[in-house]
Amino acid sequence: VDKKKLISLARGNDPVDLVFKNAKVVNVFTKSIEEGTLAVSDGVIIGMGDYQGKEEIDLKGAYIAPGFIDGHVHIESSMLTPEYYAQVTIPRGTTTVVADCHEIANVLGRKGIDFMLEASETSVQDVFMMIPSCVPSTPFETSGAVLKAEDIQSYLKHPRVKGLGEMMDYVGTVHANKDVLKKIDSFSEKVIDGHAPGLIGQDLNAYVLAGVETDHECVEPHELIEKIKRGMYIHLRQGSQTKNVLDLLPGLRPEFYQRILLCSDDLHPYDMRHTGHIDHNIQLMIQAGFDPIQAISMATINSAQCYRLYKRGAIAPGYIADMVIFEDLNHLQVSQVYKNGKLVAKDHQALFDASFKTNQHVTNTIHLSDKALDFTMRLKDDLVWVIGLIKNNVSTHKIKEKVVLENSVFHCKNNPGLLKLAVIERHHKTGNIGLGIVKGYGLKHGAVAMTVAHDSHNIICLGDSDEDMVLAVKEIKSMGGGIVLVSNRKVIGNLQLDVGGIMSSKSADYVIDQLRNLEDHIKTMGLNPEIEDPFLQLAFLSLPVIPHLKVTDLGLFDVDDFKVIPMEVRENL
Amino acid sequence: VDKKKLISLARGNDPVDLVFKNAKVVNVFTKSIEEGTLAVSDGVIIGMGDYQGKEEIDLKGAYIAPGFIDGHVHIESSMLTPEYYAQVTIPRGTTTVVADCHEIANVLGRKGIDFMLEASETSVQDVFMMIPSCVPSTPFETSGAVLKAEDIQSYLKHPRVKGLGEMMDYVGTVHANKDVLKKIDSFSEKVIDGHAPGLIGQDLNAYVLAGVETDHECVEPHELIEKIKRGMYIHLRQGSQTKNVLDLLPGLRPEFYQRILLCSDDLHPYDMRHTGHIDHNIQLMIQAGFDPIQAISMATINSAQCYRLYKRGAIAPGYIADMVIFEDLNHLQVSQVYKNGKLVAKDHQALFDASFKTNQHVTNTIHLSDKALDFTMRLKDDLVWVIGLIKNNVSTHKIKEKVVLENSVFHCKNNPGLLKLAVIERHHKTGNIGLGIVKGYGLKHGAVAMTVAHDSHNIICLGDSDEDMVLAVKEIKSMGGGIVLVSNRKVIGNLQLDVGGIMSSKSADYVIDQLRNLEDHIKTMGLNPEIEDPFLQLAFLSLPVIPHLKVTDLGLFDVDDFKVIPMEVRENL
Repeated sequence: VDKKKLISLARGNDPVDLVFKNAKVVNVFTKSIEEGTLAVSDGVIIGMGDYQGKEEIDLKGAYIAPGFIDGHVHIESSMLTPEYYAQVTIPRGTTTVVADCHEIANVLGRKGIDFMLEASETSVQDVFMMIPSCVPSTPFETSGAVLKAEDIQSYLKHPRVKGLGEMMDYVGTVHANKDVLKKIDSFSEKVIDGHAPGLIGQDLNAYVLAGVETDHECVEPHELIEKIKRGMYIHLRQGSQTKNVLDLLPGLRPEFYQRILLCSDDLHPYDMRHTGHIDHNIQLMIQAGFDPIQAISMATINSAQCYRLYKRGAIAPGYIADMVIFEDLNHLQVSQVYKNGKLVAKDHQALFDASFKTNQHVTNTIHLSDKALDFTMRLKDDLVWVIGLIKNNVSTHKIKEKVVLENSVFHCKNNPGLLKLAVIERHHKTGNIGLGIVKGYGLKHGAVAMTVAHDSHNIICLGDSDEDMVLAVKEIKSMGGGIVLVSNRKVIGNLQLDVGGIMSSKSADYVIDQLRNLEDHIKTMGLNPEIEDPFLQLAFLSLPVIPHLKVTDLGLFDVDDFKVIPMEVRENL
Repeated sequence: VDKKKLISLARGNDPVDLVFKNAKVVNVFTKSIEEGTLAVSDGVIIGMGDYQGKEEIDLKGAYIAPGFIDGHVHIESSMLTPEYYAQVTIPRGTTTVVADCHEIANVLGRKGIDFMLEASETSVQDVFMMIPSCVPSTPFETSGAVLKAEDIQSYLKHPRVKGLGEMMDYVGTVHANKDVLKKIDSFSEKVIDGHAPGLIGQDLNAYVLAGVETDHECVEPHELIEKIKRGMYIHLRQGSQTKNVLDLLPGLRPEFYQRILLCSDDLHPYDMRHTGHIDHNIQLMIQAGFDPIQAISMATINSAQCYRLYKRGAIAPGYIADMVIFEDLNHLQVSQVYKNGKLVAKDHQALFDASFKTNQHVTNTIHLSDKALDFTMRLKDDLVWVIGLIKNNVSTHKIKEKVVLENSVFHCKNNPGLLKLAVIERHHKTGNIGLGIVKGYGLKHGAVAMTVAHDSHNIICLGDSDEDMVLAVKEIKSMGGGIVLVSNRKVIGNLQLDVGGIMSSKSADYVIDQLRNLEDHIKTMGLNPEIEDPFLQLAFLSLPVIPHLKVTDLGLFDVDDFKVIPMEVRENL
C-alpha cells in the first residue's frame, strides 16, 4: 500500500476508490452511529468526511459496521476446508477468524497445521491461527500425532499465528505439568487461549497465573464474572452443539463489555448457512434486548484487541476495509460484505470462487491394521457399564445394565435398545479397538461409522450388527474417511471427508446435501427422534475429557476416574 | 521466576511471601471492589482467596489498587535523572512510566537516548521508552543532534522500547514527508504516539491513517471525541504548565473510558513532590465527581493496554505486584507503594536510595564558540517586533514597539520594561546568537541564563545588561549547564544541571531547594509578580512550534509565518 497516496487521499486531494454516501457507520470506539460519507481506497478505510469517489454508492441510510471476527473457531468442524468455509461464512459478515486447527493436528500433527496455514493463505477470509496446545487431548487415546513444545515452537514466527490454542489440559496446567508449561512459556509473547469449564477459585488463579488469557467454556454468568475478574477475555459461544450466548447474557456488565468476545467454536455447515455465524450470535443478543452496537463491538474491536489484530475491527482511518452492510440495527440481516474494500458477498451469497488444491499430505489418512476387524464382545458377567446418551449433549451418563449374554458373548439382537460402539484406531495400524455399549441412540438393522470422532478422530462405529459395522468401516477406508451409513448389509449413504478424514475437499453445497441425505436416511432406521444431530451426537462419544463414560481406541473410559475400565461392573470375578 | 512454584502457591499448597488480609482490592476489569485476602509472592500477584503468608498484613479495610502508570512523560522536565525521578514519583504511586526522552535526545542524540535507557535500567520504577521522533523539532534552530529514521531504528529491539515518541511534526505527517513516514513505518509494529493540538477533520484522518495512535494535546472535549472516534487513545494531561484534566472531563463517556489514559507530560520537581503525579490527576477527577475506580483504571490497565504492557496495570493472577495502598477511595492519598511485591514507599517517602553513575557521554555538553559573546543589538529602525509575554502560558504575543535607539543601538537602560533575549548555540560552537526583545518579564539590573530552553536546549539568556548576560552565560559554561542568576555583575544563585544541561546529577531535594532559592532571588529583582514560574516561562521562549514570536539561535522567529524575521517592522529601509 502506498501510504503517501493514502494520506493525500485522506486530506481530500483526489477521489478515493469508493465512497458510501448517506451511510450510518457503526463506530465501535464511541459506540455511536456516525452519519455521513465514508471513504475507502486501496483496501483501507480513509475516513469520514467530504470525500469524492471514483465509485459512489448511496446507502440511503443503511448501516456499515466493521467485518465480524470469530474469536475462536475450529474450521474443521464445518467439514469444510478454509476456502470453502469462507464461502459460507463471509456472506454472514465474518471477514476474519481466529482459528485453532486442533482437529486436523490430532490427525496429522504439523502436516495438518501446515495445511491449514497454506489453505487459508489464499482464502478471501483472513484466518489467524492459534497453534493447538493439546495434541493428543489425553494419553488415553491414540491420536495421529503427538505435538510437544518443540514441535509447535516453529510456528511462533508465522505472521498469522497469534498464539497457543485452547489449553484444554487445565488439570495439567494447574499441576504445573512440565510440557504444558513449556508450551505456554514458548508462546508467552503471544495470546494463550483457555478452555476451563467450571474452573473457579484458587485453581482458576493457578490457571490464569500460568498464562492463560481467554475462555470460551463459560456456561453460567457467575463463572464468567469470576474469570473476568482475573483478567480473562471471555467468548460468548454459539456453536451447533454448545450454545451459551443467552445463558451468559445476564452476567454481562457495561464495565467489562470490552472483555467479551463472540465465537462459534464448532459449527456445522448447515447451521452456518441457514442459521448464521457470528451474525447469529449478535442477532440473538439483540433479540434478547442487548444493545446492538455493544454486541457488534464484541464481534469486532474486542476480538481484535484480545488477539492483537491491529488496525482491524473498526471503521477508522487506516483500518482494513472489511465491512458489513445491513438495513436495520435492531434486526441484523447482513446484505453486503466488503473485504479489503471489495464487495465479496451479497444477499447471503459469496461473490467469489473457492477451490481445494490437491495436497497428498492430508489425504489418504486411513491407516488400518491388516487384521480382520473383530467387534466380538466377550463378557465375564452380565451386569455391565453402559453409555447412556443425553439427547443433544456431549456428556453421557454412566449407567449399569443387566444384559443377556449368549455363551458369554453380547449380541445386540438379544438386547433391544442397546447398540455396540467401536472405536477403531486408524492412524498407526495398531489394530486397537475399544468397545462399549450405548443406550438411547435407537438404530436398527444397520450401522453408522465416521472418522469425525473427537479428538483423535479414529473411526467411531455404532451398530446392531457386527457385519454391518465391518462393512461401514471398510467403506470408510475406501473413501479415505467420512461418514457412512449401512443398512442390512448395504451402504445406503455416505459423505466423503477425504481431507484428514474430517473435511471434504468439496464445497459446502456438497457437504450440506450429503449430510442432509444421511440424516434423512438414518431417521428411517429407528433413530431416537429426540436426537437432533445424530452424527454430532456420535462424534463426541469418543471424547475422553467430557463426562461421564466414553470409548476410545484403548477401551471403555471413565472420565470421572480418568481411566480405562472393564465393561463388567463386578470386577475380580 | 519459578512459574511451577507460583502455580503451586496459587493453589494454596504453601504459604506465599505476603498476604494482605481485609483488603479492598480495586478490580480494574470489573470496576468493582473485591474484599478479602490478596496473596503476593516473588514479585507477582498470586490472587485472592484463602491464602496463608510468611508475612501477613492486616489492611483493616484499606484499598489496594494497581501501581499507576504515567502514559506519557518527559522525565527530563523534572530536571532529575531517572533514578532520582523515581524517588519522587514512586511515593505518589507511579510504579511505571512511559517516557519519551525527547529533551535529552535534542541535546545528545543517540547518546542521550542510550543514557536514559541505561540510567532507567537500575531504577526502582519501570521505565518504558518511546523513541523521539522529532529531533530537532524544527529546522529553524540548531539542536545538539539530528536523528533520522536510520538512527532510531536500532532501538526497535530494546525490550523496554514500546514505540515512537510523540510525532510533533503533524504538518509533515499529513503532507506525507518522506523521513516522517519512514520513522513511522519503522515503528509500525509498535505504538506511535501523537501530538496534534487542535487537529480535526480530514487532516486528522490523514494523521491517524499515517499510523499515529495516541494524543495528549487535547484541550477541548470536542477534540477529544473526534480523536476517540478515529480510534486514538487520549491522555488526560496534568503538567506543571499545561493542565487539561478538568477541561476534558466533560467530554468523557462511559462507552470509551477504556480509551482514556492519564499522563503528566512535563512536571517540575516541586509540583511532583508537593502536588503529586498521576495520583494528582486521579484525585482531581475524583474531586470533580468522577468515578474513582474508572479514574484508577485510566491510570493503570488502560495505559497498559495502549502501550502493550502485558501483565501490568491490574491486580490479577500473574500480574506484576505493583500496588498502591490508600485509605479512602474518595480522597486518594497514597500511603504505601509496593513494587514487585516489595514495600518501596511509605507516607510519601521513598524507602530506597538512588544515585547517578558518572557518565562522560552526558556531562560537559556546553560547547561555545571561542568568539567573544556579543549581544549588541544594532537596528535600522526604531519600530521593532517585540515578544509580549502571556503570563503562565507558553505562547507569546507578537507586538510592535517604538524603541529608543542610541547610535542605532538598542540598550535596555533607555527602554524601561524591555529586556534583551539571547539564544546562544551551545552544541557545535557555531557562535550563532539569536536576539530579541521581551516585554512583560520585569527583570532589573541583572540577567538570567539557562540551558533548559525548548526544544534544542541552547543557552537562553534574558537581561537588561550585556555585561550581566555575558557573565551569566560564562557561569553556565563553567557549571556545565543549568540555571544562573546574575545581579549587578555578581552571580547570586545557580542550579547546576550537569547532565546534558537539562538534568541534575543530584537528588530531588537539591534541585527543589536550589530552584526555590533562585525563585526567591529573582522575585527580588523586579520580576513581574504575575509570573508564577519565571524559569518555565523563559524556557519556552525558544520553542519555535508554539505561537507567535520566539527566538532561536538563528534569530527572531515568527511562528505563524514559520520563518526567521528581522527585528525591524519596516523592512527594506
